[in-house]
Amino acid sequence: MTAELIFVGTELLLGDILNTNAQYLSRRLSALGIPVLHQCVIGDNADRLAEALRLALTRSDLVLTTGGLGPTKDDLTKETAAAVCKKRLVRHKESLDAMRAYFSDKGAEMPKSNEKQADLPEGALVFPNSNGTAPGCAMETDGRFVLLLPGPPREMKAMFERSAVPFLRRFSEGVIVSHSVRTFGIGESAMAERVSELLDYKNPTVAPYAKNGEALLRITAKAETEKKAEALIAPVLQTVQDRLCDVIYGVDVSSLEEAVVALLKEKKLTVATAESATAGLIAKRLTDIPGASEVFHCGIVSYADKIKARLLGVERETLQKQTAVCADVAAQMAIGALRQSGAYIAVSVTGLAGPGKDEHGRDAGLAFLALTDGACVWKREVHTGHTEDDCRDYNRTVFASNALHMIYQYAAAFPNKPAGGKPLSV
Amino acid sequence: MTAELIFVGTELLLGDILNTNAQYLSRRLSALGIPVLHQCVIGDNADRLAEALRLALTRSDLVLTTGGLGPTKDDLTKETAAAVCKKRLVRHKESLDAMRAYFSDKGAEMPKSNEKQADLPEGALVFPNSNGTAPGCAMETDGRFVLLLPGPPREMKAMFERSAVPFLRRFSEGVIVSHSVRTFGIGESAMAERVSELLDYKNPTVAPYAKNGEALLRITAKAETEKKAEALIAPVLQTVQDRLCDVIYGVDVSSLEEAVVALLKEKKLTVATAESATAGLIAKRLTDIPGASEVFHCGIVSYADKIKARLLGVERETLQKQTAVCADVAAQMAIGALRQSGAYIAVSVTGLAGPGKDEHGRDAGLAFLALTDGACVWKREVHTGHTEDDCRDYNRTVFASNALHMIYQYAAAFPNKPAGGKPLSV
Repeated sequence: MTAELIFVGTELLLGDILNTNAQYLSRRLSALGIPVLHQCVIGDNADRLAEALRLALTRSDLVLTTGGLGPTKDDLTKETAAAVCKKRLVRHKESLDAMRAYFSDKGAEMPKSNEKQADLPEGALVFPNSNGTAPGCAMETDGRFVLLLPGPPREMKAMFERSAVPFLRRFSEGVIVSHSVRTFGIGESAMAERVSELLDYKNPTVAPYAKNGEALLRITAKAETEKKAEALIAPVLQTVQDRLCDVIYGVDVSSLEEAVVALLKEKKLTVATAESATAGLIAKRLTDIPGASEVFHCGIVSYADKIKARLLGVERETLQKQTAVCADVAAQMAIGALRQSGAYIAVSVTGLAGPGKDEHGRDAGLAFLALTDGACVWKREVHTGHTEDDCRDYNRTVFASNALHMIYQYAAAFPNKPAGGKPLSV
Repeated sequence: MTAELIFVGTELLLGDILNTNAQYLSRRLSALGIPVLHQCVIGDNADRLAEALRLALTRSDLVLTTGGLGPTKDDLTKETAAAVCKKRLVRHKESLDAMRAYFSDKGAEMPKSNEKQADLPEGALVFPNSNGTAPGCAMETDGRFVLLLPGPPREMKAMFERSAVPFLRRFSEGVIVSHSVRTFGIGESAMAERVSELLDYKNPTVAPYAKNGEALLRITAKAETEKKAEALIAPVLQTVQDRLCDVIYGVDVSSLEEAVVALLKEKKLTVATAESATAGLIAKRLTDIPGASEVFHCGIVSYADKIKARLLGVERETLQKQTAVCADVAAQMAIGALRQSGAYIAVSVTGLAGPGKDEHGRDAGLAFLALTDGACVWKREVHTGHTEDDCRDYNRTVFASNALHMIYQYAAAFPNKPAGGKPLSV
């Protein structure tokens, strides 16, 4: 049992939109134990779409399409798929009623042009659209199945989960279970080296990934039941955790900020931020997590030297003698934020995000960070190595991740925190 | 002359990564006047890749692949493409030297496994990789061309722009010129209605798009020369500007923050921020723009009530009687930020990002904003209408965009700013 995905839309071929449906459907089908071997994108063109559908039906048992179910004359997917599968289109009364209700809920009358959205292939299983007008469907042809889904991601996802997943379960060959181990402070290849023999395993598979200065390992098992898949994973996960214990910050967490907020809550700690180069990004990432208000109350973005001095009490002499990008300024910023906020700890960043060198000839990608709890100050110096013209986003992200990681390390060690000013990491 | 894109990588079929290369290459080829009629994704499998390449060479003049140029045994694109095109692989000394230099710059020795990356199809035009090790190439086969590009977006983009674009220019049939008109404060359909008859034009085409609460129009013309394309666009752009003058904030700018920073520089104004619900996002977006330090010096993230009171001087009585999410708190936050920062203007946001209702039963998606220059305070109330479980990101983005738009409106009117407390917009 294999599946093929066909994404319909000239806007995809022009690059006007990013094909997020591709990732969503690939991931979900994979989790259902249905391998996807081909994906293709076709414009709003009946001939090329028919050709793609015919080819797909020669090599795949399941063909899923997205897009082209709308009310305009460019929307051809249903007509084309019905013709390829030799089905007539018949008006589906329930869908028509649902569409009329959708419009009247918005206080509008349904345009005549929408009616054709209720024409569906004879004998098809209809998938209602809870977030829009176009219904989808599943139809059989010569023992293979074609599923038509709408293009807008909100409509597609809801319909996929509510209608397509229950339909597809019959094709699942067992289940696929996956766990992600997230690390910080180690490169992808160094991480992979520590677990190198695991990378050749077939079930579970162990695969390394790198993104934005972080490295993660995904462990994926396929088995008849979830329990059996978990049993295959358990010893491998244990080995990974043993080998990478110094750099792992979470298993199955979606981000460093999620792990940080959860740990601060657990330890009943609060954190404040003082940001220069990252200028709000640490605060933004912490508060991306619902419920962050329990652990984060105050952030100060001191982008200019005079603000570092005025709001955070950074000494003008330090700024003049050592510039704003130095370890002492980072330390004074953290101390200032702690005082202003009344938080339990404060973290700070000052650095060069780029593009270009600073007035002293220093490359972009350099930052100094500090974390203080009032008793001690821990410092970290970061060199991202990224100095190219478009390095700014990357550098700011990595600086902020390092600050989040310092908070994580402090909280993880709390209350057994390192004694007397010993740096957490430099 | 048509092009086809083949993206190679099992991680794409599993949905582990989002295929951003697809959008990038589609957009760039379209701009070069080379239509893309097919895209497909294939796993790291030599047979299926060979099949896809053969099919592509029957129907497309140009075939571009990304991915599968790495040093591991999974990386098969070069070997497979060379076999399909009946070319031998030969070691390319310059590429080998460049790879060795890449490693020695990082103080590392090149692993033996990387050597195979320097094996390239005989007679191919080699594309150096300025951001990594794997070189790419272009080769001819029976009058058609196959271009191999690396998978990591940073490497792919740099190679495409520096090497592939000069190579592809010979295939450009004329040029495509596109201009984007960006608006704020109007919905996509209301915007489209104001220019409805233009949407039927064939050359230039006029297409509306919506994203994150903003609506934009793209005007695209195809002609023999850039000058002729611009001449086709000019009268249509003028009509669009006339019809939408009250909501346009920029033509060919990449974001609201870019327009805001440019306008603040032009007017020699500085802005400070006081953020609650957006918690650093406005500051982060302003400072995404290189050179923002000229116009932005200070931001205060007052996520907790006590910080609003302590750092921004918001009255505890107002907080108690009206809650933290009200117009008066927004106004006092802006006034406080102005005083703390010494900036020319200050903007503030307090609101409910969600998920869920607040303790007074108010829905997520509500925010109060204020902007002050010390003489007047302008206020705005925002209802995004988004209350679903995953509304948080959207709401924060739209709140921040509204704050940026208030700054834009103030700066656009400066020095002819509205007199005596007249609201810019509520």
